Order: sequence, then structure tokens, then C-alpha cells
Amino acid sequence: MRLILCSPMDMHLHLRDGNMLRAVAPLSAKNFSAAIVMPNLIPPVTSEQMAQSYKKRILEATKGEDFEPLMTLFFKSDYNYDFLKRVKEDIAAIKLYPAGITTNSQGGVENFSLEALAPTLEAMSELGIPLCVHGETSGFVMDREAEFIPIYERIAKRFPNLKIIMEHITTKAAVEALLRYENLYATITLHHLYITLDDVIGGLMRPHLFCKPVAKRPEDRMALRKVAFMAHDKVMFGSDSAPHPRSAKEAPGCAAGVFSAPVALPALAQLFEAADVLENLQKFVSDNAQKIYGLTPPAKKVKLIKKSWRVPDRYGNVVPMFAGEELGWRVDEDTAA
Amino acid sequence: MRLILCSPMDMHLHLRDGNMLRAVAPLSAKNFSAAIVMPNLIPPVTSEQMAQSYKKRILEATKGEDFEPLMTLFFKSDYNYDFLKRVKEDIAAIKLYPAGITTNSQGGVENFSLEALAPTLEAMSELGIPLCVHGETSGFVMDREAEFIPIYERIAKRFPNLKIIMEHITTKAAVEALLRYENLYATITLHHLYITLDDVIGGLMRPHLFCKPVAKRPEDRMALRKVAFMAHDKVMFGSDSAPHPRSAKEAPGCAAGVFSAPVALPALAQLFEAADVLENLQKFVSDNAQKIYGLTPPAKKVKLIKKSWRVPDRYGNVVPMFAGEELGWRVDEDTAA
Repeated sequence: MRLILCSPMDMHLHLRDGNMLRAVAPLSAKNFSAAIVMPNLIPPVTSEQMAQSYKKRILEATKGEDFEPLMTLFFKSDYNYDFLKRVKEDIAAIKLYPAGITTNSQGGVENFSLEALAPTLEAMSELGIPLCVHGETSGFVMDREAEFIPIYERIAKRFPNLKIIMEHITTKAAVEALLRYENLYATITLHHLYITLDDVIGGLMRPHLFCKPVAKRPEDRMALRKVAFMAHDKVMFGSDSAPHPRSAKEAPGCAAGVFSAPVALPALAQLFEAADVLENLQKFVSDNAQKIYGLTPPAKKVKLIKKSWRVPDRYGNVVPMFAGEELGWRVDEDTAA
Repeated sequence: MRLILCSPMDMHLHLRDGNMLRAVAPLSAKNFSAAIVMPNLIPPVTSEQMAQSYKKRILEATKGEDFEPLMTLFFKSDYNYDFLKRVKEDIAAIKLYPAGITTNSQGGVENFSLEALAPTLEAMSELGIPLCVHGETSGFVMDREAEFIPIYERIAKRFPNLKIIMEHITTKAAVEALLRYENLYATITLHHLYITLDDVIGGLMRPHLFCKPVAKRPEDRMALRKVAFMAHDKVMFGSDSAPHPRSAKEAPGCAAGVFSAPVALPALAQLFEAADVLENLQKFVSDNAQKIYGLTPPAKKVKLIKKSWRVPDRYGNVVPMFAGEELGWRVDEDTAA
């Protein structure tokens, strides 16, 4: 059995920088035609120069692949209209992190009042720049996403023309909010479609499945699967693939992040096939995102074949999701390039 | 400031065997006058010979300390009256594990029907042997304890003379159930009084705070603190101190267990003092347990002094709770022995 995906895109991707960038970017570039690249470097990407230069480093790391990195800026409340107008050509979106909520987010937003956010959001709305949001409060870990929903709602109501992407949603509550507002959209990761908190701490503790937002309850996963499997117009695939060196994952104080880029498409195919909705995968991994973002990625066909393979224990010094396990689908390397 | 504790007891303790036993048992024996010793060795302790021989190994490992290991058997549905009558002199309780629920519990109970459990429970009830229970189902990790409560209730109602100890309770639901039935009692650990799930996976992941049952929500911790701080007659301190070698904790597939034995009394004093209930600690760590179990531990005074110390990074190859952190109280070694 075969499946040709046209221009699959990863709408939420961490590529890091330096050696890590050079190690992981080619793995995404091989399987995807474009990706929304997260700006949470140290220091975060906050200027056109930084975005351009980061993009250049990504293109160098992925030379030879037909792959477009779609750059983002790290949200600041004081970006002004002229700056955003100038930078608009260089970026696909702006990513908002609450301060301290995940890896390298220390410089994120602390004040979520509309007054504080309005200057930047107003300009983004006028200029048509989508807002990507890591929507979690600093509350109890299982409640953070649900607690953040009123903030999504306030922004969605006040800026009806602003496209707001609820990134890596993990809960039934988020799915319900998504469907209530026309200008809310969402990315869903591979791992949140696969796992619940049981997989992380229900048996032995599995640091390689530890991520933010943490995986939630079975009924939450069911709600995510429902909209993903039907490829609801409002949802897109975003891996949130977040590589950390093995030493940072397999130690006390383990960093949050699942590295799924190299296994994402095969694992999605396996999951969608099992749910008997393989025909919806194209929409979920590309068509919806093209419409929501209004963009045209490089034309690229990626061929998946139903043939089992053993996922490597490591890619360089990074342990992937499904390390050492069998997946029933694989990317046909001949056609992927 | 000083605090003299008379015969403090740890009513739920894992001492393991072999080298680990020799490494950790002295740390408990120094601070406690007695402890209920868990039977989940490989193979589990299921006969009087095994209990006697394990007790002997513990006494050898704690030679020189005034410390009484109170032995337990691993619950089997087919213990008969005569066997239990014979073994009664050697054990303080029988510990029931659901199959596979935690470390070395593979041989635990699979069938929780009263019919299946009745033969052993009937005999225990007649002979006055307390039943200690790890009360979790195999459901979603945050729900397991609450889901188990109907089983507690069934047993409590059917065997009104059986003393049932709900071990290491972690939820408001368990506290409420505890108060509903006269013959239900509970142990509470140090770590469940201190932490919530936020401490385990809310920031970076902290394997040394990963345990079963997993730490729950803030309102659950509040309910535990309430009954512990008032030293409610039905609750006793049981550390569930569960040593694993550092290599088994700081790796993927991290084992469940917090090693708290060497820090338990100082950390409890700190917590009870902060809550302005230091005068209730004696009841919580000894008097209640003496009444519930109807036992008299070796007379032993343990002196705590309010003087800060830095908890060692490791005891042998085991990382303790609060490793490398300051505690405001310490055991006065001169009087502890």
C-alpha cells in the first residue's frame, strides 16, 4: 500500500541552532515541504535580522532539500506597526509564549490584559499576521490549558480579523473553544494524538514522552483524535518536535519535548489508517494549513509505503519518539528527496 | 528549639534486600523505633519462614539500633485459617497489592470480588490481622485511587471487624472514604504531604519525586494535610520510602519510589512547625499507630533540633528526597542511637 502526500507541512517545529540545527533540520526537510519554525532560541528571534539570519542557517543545514522554513518572531507587546509592516515579508507568524512556560520562554508575556497586548495585536490584525499561542497559564499542570481559554476568547472577540492559532492543543476544553470562535485555529501534535498521561507516568516514567503541555486524559485524546481524523478545517498538523540531547532528557530535571520529526508522517499514516481515515491525512498535514495561513509551500511529493521498519534508537544524540519500536509505514526515501 | 519524639514509627517502609537492605535499613533504624516492612521482594514474602528469615536479615543490618521490624505477608487469596493462625505471631499485617500496580507486585490480586477475597479476609478478621492495601485500579493514573474506593467500601462493609489500612493515600476522595467507615484507617507519606503533580512534571521532570500512587492535585494535598496536621485518630505516618539505585531512577523507564527514610522526621517537623501544629507530630508518627495496630514499639526517644543542615546528594547509590537542599530541623545523632 502506498500514499502520496503533496507538500506535507509541519506547522509547529523546533529546529534549535548550531550543531543541533544541523543534526535535526535535514530530518524535517526530507519529509516536509515547509515548516513553521519556532523562535525560542537564546536569545529569542525578535528582529528581521535575526529571522533572516536564522532562516539562512536553516537553509544551509537543509541544502539540497526542497524545504521552506517559515519563520516566526517571538511575541513582544511593544512591536509597533511600522516594524511589523517591514518584517511581514520575512515571517509567517508571531509566536506568543507566556513567560517561563516552556523551553527558552523566559522573555515571554507576563501581562495578558488586552491593554498590554493591544498595540502589537492591533497591528498584526491589520497586517494579516497570524498569532500563534502557547496557551497555558502557570496553574496546576493538568489545568493550565483549560485555564488559558478565557484569554483565547478575549483576544478572539476583540480582534475578530486576527487569525489565532492555538498551538499543540491537548484537551477537550481546547477543542470546544476552537469550535466556538471563527478566528481560532489549532495545531495538533503527533504525540498528543498517540499518548495520554498514562504513557508518561502511568507505568514506569518515560522522559522521552515528557512534553509541555503534558499529555492529558483519555477523553482529551479522544477529542483531539476526533477533529484530527476528520481533518476539520480548523486543525493542522504541527509536530512540536523538540529535540534535546539525550543527556538533558535522561537526567533529573529532564527537559520537556518529544522529538518526533523523523517519525511523524509514518506514525500519522499508521494512526489514520487504523482509524480508517487515511484519505483525510492530506488535508491534516497540508491543505488545511495552506488555507488557514494563505500560503503555498514548495510543490513536493512525499511517498509513504506500508512497510514496517524499526525506528533508530537515536538520531545523533537525540532519542526519537518510538525509538527502537516498529512502525508499519515508512517514507520511501527515493521519492522523498 | 527541640522536640522529643517517643518511639516514632514508620508504618509503611520498603527495605528491599541484600546490599540495598544493608545500605538503607540503618537509616530507618536510627530514626524510628519500629516500622511496618513491606513484603514485595522477589519472590514476595508469603510464608512464615520467609518472614522470619527476612526479619533476621533486617535485624542483622540494623544491629546496635533499638529497632523492631514489623513484618508483613504479601496477600494471597488462598491463605487459610490454620496457616494464618500459625503465622500471626510473626507478622503485624498482610499487604494486598493489585497485580502489577507497582514495584514487584506482579503476583498481586487480579480478582477483587468478595467471593475471591473472602477466605483470607474472613480468617484475618477472626484472627485480628490488619489488612494493608495499595488501593489503586489499573485505570487512568490520576483516577486510580478514587476508582478503587468502592473496593475499600465493599471490604469494609462485609468485614466490619477487619482493620483495613488504606496505604499512602493521595486524594481528597480517599480522605472522605476513610472518614465514612469505622474500620478504615490510612497511612500518609511525607512526600504526598509536600508535593503535588506540579513538582513531578509541572516544571522540568523530576524522577526522584516520581512514585506510585503519583502525587495528585493541590486540593488533594490540602485534604491530606488537614487530617495529618490534626493527627486525626485514623491516620498514621508511613513513609513508603522506596529506595532504587540512582541508575534506575535517572534513566528512561524510571522506577517509581521516593527515598525519604533519612529525611522523614526532620521534614515532618519542618512541615508541622510551619503549620503551627508541631504538638500533633507525636500522635501522627507514633501514638495513633500504636492504637490502631494495638502494638507497643521499643521505647526510644528521638530528639529533633531546629538547626539547618544540607541533605546529602546521595546515601550510597540512592538519591534521597530533598537531596542537596536545606532542611530546618535535624535529628540529634547523640540521642537518636
